[in-house]
Amino acid sequence: MGFDSGTIIDPVKLATSDHASVVSITLFVTLLCTCIVIGHLLEENRWMNESIIALIIGLGTGVFILLVSGGKSSHLMLFSEDLFFIYLLPPIIFNAGFQVKKKQFFRNFITIMMFGALGTLISFIIISLGAIAFFGRMDIDLAIGDFLAIGAIFAATDSVCTLQVLSQDETPLLYSLVFGEGVVNDATSVVLFNAVQDFDLSHINTGIALQLIGNFFYLFITSTALGVVAGLLSAYVIKKLYFGRHSTDREVAIMMLLAYLSYMLAELFYLSGILTVFFCGIVMSHYTWHNITENSRITTKHTFATLSFVAETFIFLYVGMDALDMEKWKVVSDSPKTSISVSATLLGLVLLGRAAFVFPLSFLSNLTKKSPYDKIDFKKQITIWWAGLMRGAVSMALAYNQFTRAGHTQLRGNAILITSTITVVLFSTVVFGLMTKPLVRLLMPSSKQLSRMISSEPLTPKSFNVPLLGESMDSEGELFGANGSEAHGGGQTGVRPSRLRMLLTTPTRTVHYYWRKFDDAFMRPVFGGRGFAPYVPGSPTEENVHYWQGENKY
Amino acid sequence: MGFDSGTIIDPVKLATSDHASVVSITLFVTLLCTCIVIGHLLEENRWMNESIIALIIGLGTGVFILLVSGGKSSHLMLFSEDLFFIYLLPPIIFNAGFQVKKKQFFRNFITIMMFGALGTLISFIIISLGAIAFFGRMDIDLAIGDFLAIGAIFAATDSVCTLQVLSQDETPLLYSLVFGEGVVNDATSVVLFNAVQDFDLSHINTGIALQLIGNFFYLFITSTALGVVAGLLSAYVIKKLYFGRHSTDREVAIMMLLAYLSYMLAELFYLSGILTVFFCGIVMSHYTWHNITENSRITTKHTFATLSFVAETFIFLYVGMDALDMEKWKVVSDSPKTSISVSATLLGLVLLGRAAFVFPLSFLSNLTKKSPYDKIDFKKQITIWWAGLMRGAVSMALAYNQFTRAGHTQLRGNAILITSTITVVLFSTVVFGLMTKPLVRLLMPSSKQLSRMISSEPLTPKSFNVPLLGESMDSEGELFGANGSEAHGGGQTGVRPSRLRMLLTTPTRTVHYYWRKFDDAFMRPVFGGRGFAPYVPGSPTEENVHYWQGENKY
Repeated sequence: MGFDSGTIIDPVKLATSDHASVVSITLFVTLLCTCIVIGHLLEENRWMNESIIALIIGLGTGVFILLVSGGKSSHLMLFSEDLFFIYLLPPIIFNAGFQVKKKQFFRNFITIMMFGALGTLISFIIISLGAIAFFGRMDIDLAIGDFLAIGAIFAATDSVCTLQVLSQDETPLLYSLVFGEGVVNDATSVVLFNAVQDFDLSHINTGIALQLIGNFFYLFITSTALGVVAGLLSAYVIKKLYFGRHSTDREVAIMMLLAYLSYMLAELFYLSGILTVFFCGIVMSHYTWHNITENSRITTKHTFATLSFVAETFIFLYVGMDALDMEKWKVVSDSPKTSISVSATLLGLVLLGRAAFVFPLSFLSNLTKKSPYDKIDFKKQITIWWAGLMRGAVSMALAYNQFTRAGHTQLRGNAILITSTITVVLFSTVVFGLMTKPLVRLLMPSSKQLSRMISSEPLTPKSFNVPLLGESMDSEGELFGANGSEAHGGGQTGVRPSRLRMLLTTPTRTVHYYWRKFDDAFMRPVFGGRGFAPYVPGSPTEENVHYWQGENKY
Repeated sequence: MGFDSGTIIDPVKLATSDHASVVSITLFVTLLCTCIVIGHLLEENRWMNESIIALIIGLGTGVFILLVSGGKSSHLMLFSEDLFFIYLLPPIIFNAGFQVKKKQFFRNFITIMMFGALGTLISFIIISLGAIAFFGRMDIDLAIGDFLAIGAIFAATDSVCTLQVLSQDETPLLYSLVFGEGVVNDATSVVLFNAVQDFDLSHINTGIALQLIGNFFYLFITSTALGVVAGLLSAYVIKKLYFGRHSTDREVAIMMLLAYLSYMLAELFYLSGILTVFFCGIVMSHYTWHNITENSRITTKHTFATLSFVAETFIFLYVGMDALDMEKWKVVSDSPKTSISVSATLLGLVLLGRAAFVFPLSFLSNLTKKSPYDKIDFKKQITIWWAGLMRGAVSMALAYNQFTRAGHTQLRGNAILITSTITVVLFSTVVFGLMTKPLVRLLMPSSKQLSRMISSEPLTPKSFNVPLLGESMDSEGELFGANGSEAHGGGQTGVRPSRLRMLLTTPTRTVHYYWRKFDDAFMRPVFGGRGFAPYVPGSPTEENVHYWQGENKY
């Protein structure tokens, strides 16, 4: 590249790292920088978001490499599930838990669980049955396990895409519902995928169904517990040992490492790492974050956000580049019609499968809510349906896993499904993704929450000012007042079966109330947290501020 | 591991990432956490430092795995040069450049260059000749290229070790000399290693020698220039586009990515990535760091330090675990005497080779210095000699590269050299490392600089309060006053050839003076920097503070 090696001795490098990987890393880092700069310049644009920019740049680079290499290859690295699941996904999901509005999330906990578990199951069944019905006519030869895998692959909302198109500040309810659903349905997917592995249609009975349900709850509870324990451990260790005394670096390092450890432990025990690291993030933001020094708080908050941001951009960049890989397209190039109809069928099934649970479950959820603020009106239902349609890198990784393993990657059916997955991912991310921002603005104009949220303390992760589960009772009056724009919502708002509602809302309130008492009386004195860390001797107190500010390095 | 999978369906994981890598990553993260906690608890201990703790924990884990696996293997990953040179080394060296005391570094620039270039060459010659002389008698069969490689491997000071045992705050002069030497001699090593590849003793003449010298300067200048350009580019881009307007995450991300890009570009063009990323760090701390928002400043400073800290700990942990790998020891187990004598010879040659340049070059350096503060007295010379004796992961990586490639890893000579390298690395790190802290305290008791340094502004990377090259003239009076404890230094201090000294110091001063004028008049107005960023419209000004503080996320 214009580098004159004439007078220089031969490039036999001292470090001898594999030069091909140096080339591809350099290219990826350059592209990431480009994405960030362009994303910054197009910040005000109402259509664009970072993921679409990264996807387009990735596609462009793919075309360029394809031309340079003479049509051989469009990507520089093989798609690695390890890279995705071990390095890129954990920081994204952890940061989402760390920055999530806990109040919103726990208030809608039951709805989120319904969407994530029941909804994913409904979607899975519809997509699987649809695939069996349509693909049979299209002359595509697949085993029953493959059809069920298609259901599992396309039933899961991509949490990463959701983060990109929905804003927690502008639409907190939608964000918590759609993103929360995405986190919970990871556990559902694990159960479904495991069940699919050795599925026998002839032996399905109530016993097996109950066992699957039991597995889901087991997985959900153990994964969550692991995340909570890891978070509490970090809070306790940092509070007791008070790392900030010697070094802010140790605090930051131990927080990061423990968060990552929780994910890896979940993977080690075949649990849902996504659920674990998400809850670890919630607990860390509630306790651990308050036990560290001021500088560490700023550092962790921004570092987690930056890592997550870079990982997201990287994923979309990669998906864009990988989409043009010739290998896969060659096999299907003789039957473009089949490939297109498979992709279209899958897109239709995704749309249908999601509609089949969003509207009924929203109706059920509305029955249990008193406050119109918590109700999901029809406009919101449409947005929830739409915002969860995108399929991203998770679907890609699962499709690669199912259809390229054990050497039968050259089978026509498998090749068609791989290319169709790429088509669905590209189409849903670009088209649905582009239209989500305008749709949200159209259906929910000038939400009043926006200004309220932005005025909150910028130095704390979002909503750290409210207790983990509390304040929903006190603030209900305020919420009524603040939501004039939502009171006229159509659909189910009129239906008010007050008896059922009372029955269902009371336990939730009681749980909130007792949790708050417990948090104040036991949890925070032991694990630290807002308002508690400074008053315990030996932990980071205000009096020590000048001491640790004098420290520069460990 | 106590995980009951009886009621759970088979662990066929959804994510399907390679389970072996999950196990080893989990173990490494756990060990890293342990190292950090123990390092914190032993902070006050005068003997210990983080690297020795990590090394010991690594050794212990190695023994444990060895016992569990029945003597088969003691490590979970293969030693990967890619991991080391692509992922672990860049953050360490970048952070060193980012936090280095620029004043100290540039004031001693000529001495550092002498140590790094000439010193490494002297050391290389002595160790190579010594190896040829001794190993011939020990019945070890090696090619001439291997002997020269041994010289290059053991001539290089390990910058990572230096960072661990010398404190920039307590002994700024020593730190800048030994660490600066370590950075410069990376360029020397590249030239030497390349020259060694096709070396022909019979054809050595003045022309080839001159060409090697030319190569060194070419490599040094291009590598430095690349780092400076990357740093200035980041400063200019961040100043012009003002990322902080929308998102602090983008600022932090672009700084990290550009720093990493500089290293990867250097590797891509077969330059010295260590030199490049070091100078990139210096330029970024001088310009870029002042152009970003306050939160980003805190974040970048601590994130770079944390990443560097974790990478260092990881390296030592790994070296400890890898040391017990049975494969290598089996080959040499029938000739333990040879192995021990080779290791002892190498250690002796390292000691001798370093002594052969530290004392003469210090004498030369003292001739050019007027201020006793800048002079290297005899006690300091001993410390410099001692503190640069450690050999670490860099030596390991080079030895693996030289002696295990092209399949001839089973040769007896090669196996002995691998195990001897491990022995030298362990011995020098543990023994020399353990004794450095007490030695520094013994030879340089209660340095007055300590209190002076600690009182400096804690929120800026060290020594950001002084211009890049300036103030050496103005502050000379102060330095005289502040160094009563160093005025009685023995050795060469008495010799004052004033004519030669004047001749040599004047250009340095003139360079300092003009650089400062240039920096104030051109560089800072264009690239930002302390005192300049706030006054340029469109860049991060104080008036904008409330604006970007209102932003929470991109």
